[in-house]
Amino acid sequence: MVDLRSDTVTKPTPAMREAMAGAEVGDDVYGEDPTVTALEAEVAALFGHEAALFAPTGSMANQIALQLLVPPASELLCDADAHVVTYEIGAAAAIGGISSRTWPAVGAEIDPEVVAGMIRPDGYFAVPTRAIAVEQTHNRGGGGVIPLATLRQLRGVADDAGVALHCDGARIWHAHVADRVPLAEYGALFDTLSVCLSKGLGAPVGSLVVGSAEKIERARWIRKRMGGGMRQVGVLAAAGRYALRHHIERLADDHARAARLAEALAPFGVVDSAAVRTNIVPLDLTKAPLDAAGLGAAARAEGVLVSVLGPRTARLVTHLDLDDAAIDRAIEVLVAIFRG
Amino acid sequence: MVDLRSDTVTKPTPAMREAMAGAEVGDDVYGEDPTVTALEAEVAALFGHEAALFAPTGSMANQIALQLLVPPASELLCDADAHVVTYEIGAAAAIGGISSRTWPAVGAEIDPEVVAGMIRPDGYFAVPTRAIAVEQTHNRGGGGVIPLATLRQLRGVADDAGVALHCDGARIWHAHVADRVPLAEYGALFDTLSVCLSKGLGAPVGSLVVGSAEKIERARWIRKRMGGGMRQVGVLAAAGRYALRHHIERLADDHARAARLAEALAPFGVVDSAAVRTNIVPLDLTKAPLDAAGLGAAARAEGVLVSVLGPRTARLVTHLDLDDAAIDRAIEVLVAIFRG
Amino acid sequence: MVDLRSDTVTKPTPAMREAMAGAEVGDDVYGEDPTVTALEAEVAALFGHEAALFAPTGSMANQIALQLLVPPASELLCDADAHVVTYEIGAAAAIGGISSRTWPAVGAEIDPEVVAGMIRPDGYFAVPTRAIAVEQTHNRGGGGVIPLATLRQLRGVADDAGVALHCDGARIWHAHVADRVPLAEYGALFDTLSVCLSKGLGAPVGSLVVGSAEKIERARWIRKRMGGGMRQVGVLAAAGRYALRHHIERLADDHARAARLAEALAPFGVVDSAAVRTNIVPLDLTKAPLDAAGLGAAARAEGVLVSVLGPRTARLVTHLDLDDAAIDRAIEVLVAIFRG
Amino acid sequence: MVDLRSDTVTKPTPAMREAMAGAEVGDDVYGEDPTVTALEAEVAALFGHEAALFAPTGSMANQIALQLLVPPASELLCDADAHVVTYEIGAAAAIGGISSRTWPAVGAEIDPEVVAGMIRPDGYFAVPTRAIAVEQTHNRGGGGVIPLATLRQLRGVADDAGVALHCDGARIWHAHVADRVPLAEYGALFDTLSVCLSKGLGAPVGSLVVGSAEKIERARWIRKRMGGGMRQVGVLAAAGRYALRHHIERLADDHARAARLAEALAPFGVVDSAAVRTNIVPLDLTKAPLDAAGLGAAARAEGVLVSVLGPRTARLVTHLDLDDAAIDRAIEVLVAIFRG
Repeated sequence: MVDLRSDTVTKPTPAMREAMAGAEVGDDVYGEDPTVTALEAEVAALFGHEAALFAPTGSMANQIALQLLVPPASELLCDADAHVVTYEIGAAAAIGGISSRTWPAVGAEIDPEVVAGMIRPDGYFAVPTRAIAVEQTHNRGGGGVIPLATLRQLRGVADDAGVALHCDGARIWHAHVADRVPLAEYGALFDTLSVCLSKGLGAPVGSLVVGSAEKIERARWIRKRMGGGMRQVGVLAAAGRYALRHHIERLADDHARAARLAEALAPFGVVDSAAVRTNIVPLDLTKAPLDAAGLGAAARAEGVLVSVLGPRTARLVTHLDLDDAAIDRAIEVLVAIFRG
Repeated sequence: MVDLRSDTVTKPTPAMREAMAGAEVGDDVYGEDPTVTALEAEVAALFGHEAALFAPTGSMANQIALQLLVPPASELLCDADAHVVTYEIGAAAAIGGISSRTWPAVGAEIDPEVVAGMIRPDGYFAVPTRAIAVEQTHNRGGGGVIPLATLRQLRGVADDAGVALHCDGARIWHAHVADRVPLAEYGALFDTLSVCLSKGLGAPVGSLVVGSAEKIERARWIRKRMGGGMRQVGVLAAAGRYALRHHIERLADDHARAARLAEALAPFGVVDSAAVRTNIVPLDLTKAPLDAAGLGAAARAEGVLVSVLGPRTARLVTHLDLDDAAIDRAIEVLVAIFRG
Repeated sequence: MVDLRSDTVTKPTPAMREAMAGAEVGDDVYGEDPTVTALEAEVAALFGHEAALFAPTGSMANQIALQLLVPPASELLCDADAHVVTYEIGAAAAIGGISSRTWPAVGAEIDPEVVAGMIRPDGYFAVPTRAIAVEQTHNRGGGGVIPLATLRQLRGVADDAGVALHCDGARIWHAHVADRVPLAEYGALFDTLSVCLSKGLGAPVGSLVVGSAEKIERARWIRKRMGGGMRQVGVLAAAGRYALRHHIERLADDHARAARLAEALAPFGVVDSAAVRTNIVPLDLTKAPLDAAGLGAAARAEGVLVSVLGPRTARLVTHLDLDDAAIDRAIEVLVAIFRG
Repeated sequence: MVDLRSDTVTKPTPAMREAMAGAEVGDDVYGEDPTVTALEAEVAALFGHEAALFAPTGSMANQIALQLLVPPASELLCDADAHVVTYEIGAAAAIGGISSRTWPAVGAEIDPEVVAGMIRPDGYFAVPTRAIAVEQTHNRGGGGVIPLATLRQLRGVADDAGVALHCDGARIWHAHVADRVPLAEYGALFDTLSVCLSKGLGAPVGSLVVGSAEKIERARWIRKRMGGGMRQVGVLAAAGRYALRHHIERLADDHARAARLAEALAPFGVVDSAAVRTNIVPLDLTKAPLDAAGLGAAARAEGVLVSVLGPRTARLVTHLDLDDAAIDRAIEVLVAIFRG
């Protein structure tokens, strides 16, 4: 099977498993797991922040950050396709009591003035805006990369209004590789970030929240309430440390493979290959001869798995477990399907 | 003082006070207040629904309806300027656990296709959309009236997706008077409505949730949890019953006065008088010689009160306590201010 | 009908209705209703606190106070029969996110050491206790009065632990009259109190939260979120002001009538008449020839209404709308029933 | 160091690490991790239930179960020392909106009649009780084992009232070994159980919720909202499977070592050795020459770690990483301290 559904499907490599098997561990609820502590320090340093906290999933990392920034009954602004209001099962509202308003789904193409115009000030009548969240790279936005200049403008917007800025950086590694922006340069722009080890980086489990020491102290308490205070979790953190050392730069290969996929399918009018900048190839089947479910079934029959996102939208994702040969095979199968 | 801040400022008339003073009452938590029961039946009948429930405020009526339609961790769609996500202090998220995404603030000019495109289906991954809310007339949308045809299209969108449709009808009376649409015709399009007695209709306190008997039965329980289960509240319901009989048709006068205000101020480029259809006159001071705070202060100094909504936006509202002479005086004062 | 179900059933007297009809009002959301403002100042002064806030119900007043004192995910201690965890529909947890643990239901007979032993300190592991709530008089505790000495000990317990103390004082007026303790003396012992105008005091609707100016400022915001920000609500506040002037001292009559009821029924082993100190007569039908439902039905057939609280427990409540003749009639009916 | 603080501190053994390193894995959010699926099936079968779900912590497993059984604004009954209302950071109320009342902390010595007397039925007025939770063995209750007969009576109480029964079975393995009750016999008595792999069983991370197929289907969705939907988590599940095979029966050794500790310390009046039945030795220092903090410091200075639970209470816990020699050393140190 060539599994193009998501980069979440990657399995730990033998070397990563070896790192895990040899990990020094302790009880992390007591703050005594040296491997977790080392991972947290490394990730904080990468982004130029004081501290970081390990979490079992990207969703928990995001939700912890949102709870840090937005008190119950206050407001978060994000785009209408953001992971935090789409794929996190309503946690922001249901767990954090966080009110949200959204700007239209434009993926990575954010207009800071539109965002600025939505901010509501403190006062007796309206729900006050407390934070803005962006997603880098943008999952439903086809892996698009928000330009550094846009992020800087957004930081200005946030500063002017006195609100916080959060980055859902599950795939910020891809932005870093695609745009050659140092991670610390991204880090400097945000109050909090979440970053994920188990998507492009290939670790089996794990994300981190990054922020100030004071915030991460409070985050530890929130994480426990969410049920994320694990014990000898250095066995997972070891995979993350390995991934940071060995799996960031190689994302360029995933990007190149995604580009190759996009170029092969562009002639069928299902993807704008110029817009594919990272490891996600969004397919718009509006004018295709078959719908997303049909594509999914036809590809699966030939050993290729794709994500069906909507009636006429699908997604291909390249990752650590797919080499050039796998992409060749996927192209062969998909081209044959689109040729009909 | 000519108080143009809001139609919430109206005081009960002598005849209304008389109705209140003579109201037959009982313990409404036990379902024994005949005046409340009569009001609930009358309002339900006006909108062609089975039942209605009295609530102390429009905010509580809206929030009860949203909790009826949207379980915690599910999703509500509305516009980014909707009262339910602006002026209700985050209650939908903080109390109901309701996740919200918003389409851009366009007041009464809703594009049903945009709304349809935002709906998320049931499934394992994304937060499912459960309800769409609209506001008729639209407060921050300058008292705009959503056309009946648009509402019918939205009903179709909701039916196609299997989601509910709620109307924040705090000022639905104004839409009814402006567009001559029977209230029951509006009622037929919505799963739930909230309607308010203490804005244009001039009662001191009170709103109602309207819906099916099953929903209103559950609403009674939700209202008690919100702290809205009052006792001999027939003293307020009596004002509402009086208002329904005597204060609906006269809203045409308020509309005419608002139109007069708008026409007088249009030459200064602060309002599009053609867009003023009900009792709200939104002022856009972007190109005016003074900002909203300045306008507010200058008008107040001359005995005219206006609402300051933002740095360059203000609002005038006509209502029961303002007659033609009051409007004349307001025009005189405001024109003098804009003339500089 | 002789309605002994609850003191919530009282209807406004003609004099009270007159006060309401003539009330000066304004928009209380804008802080402009002079009658509400006067009532709030009077109630605050009665209890020696800086400020008070009108609310539509006792449940909302209690829940606002609890939200003031106990942040989400922190803990409230109260007794297992307290109104705040029994009759407020789960609001503390569902709306305030407040965790609760309870000491056994002992009505007004609280052991401060038991309470002290339950308090949990701040720290990383356990939910910290933030407030203790007591109920004066105690509804399910048969209208029992917590002795002033006990309350003082509880204040000491709270101070030692650095937690707040709330009084659900829906019927604190009865304690004041029964024990001749000045209201301000009670007031001095609590961080917040809720007091009710529509039970023993006979107003149709209304309660207040009492506390510091800072707390009441925040309470205003919480009240709006709960849907309790009403407009010309001076029409209700006027009834409350009247009640404060005319209906407190007369509670002694209600107490005497309750005592008379209890003495008449004590021979049947259903009530300890010595324990009846205010206007509530709890009936324990464990050894009676009929159960609570049977008693309710038999009494209703003779024009007497009683509250059925459990399979073998019922309740009689005296109030403003019941005079000596009504109590005579109730005694006649109930004695006949218990005689069989 | 002889670490007697908790059985959560155990580190994976070499054999367990080997099992983890070789685990077959997949994306468990897609339901494709064979090791997790196998573990879930095994645990469900052990307790005679249809299904089980892996969770990162015991707290999340408990909270998922409570959310399954108790809708927001409904009620849970448990004891005042239960882990679910003590050490889970208010999650039941703050995340689940669950109202709780507690019976006095009596550890494993539950009186089913007291519990029965607290249940509140459905109805318009009082918060309805939906579930009862017990803890087996009881952590703050000194590792006490609730007798099977008591659990059967509680099941009867629950059935009579139509409420659910949950078992916080973080250490149910110890009860099974101490009382020789088959796990399936426990399982048959509960609607849901949580069981933990990372305490006595020695796995680094992981708990499971056990229940019906329908409940576990809903649990998957709740887990995702809580942030517990991990990916290639078979690396952890492999440790759990190993633990189930090799670390249950050996708990008898931990129990024997705890008994040995208790007997050695009983002469100092700090523990009732007859009450120590599993791996927890609670120390009551009320009459000891030093308080809990003093004991903790003195023991630590000699290389022995104990848990300080309160001013005069401490706790010793035996586990997989402590052999007879370690216990000998602990006894030597602690006896010397108590001798003064």
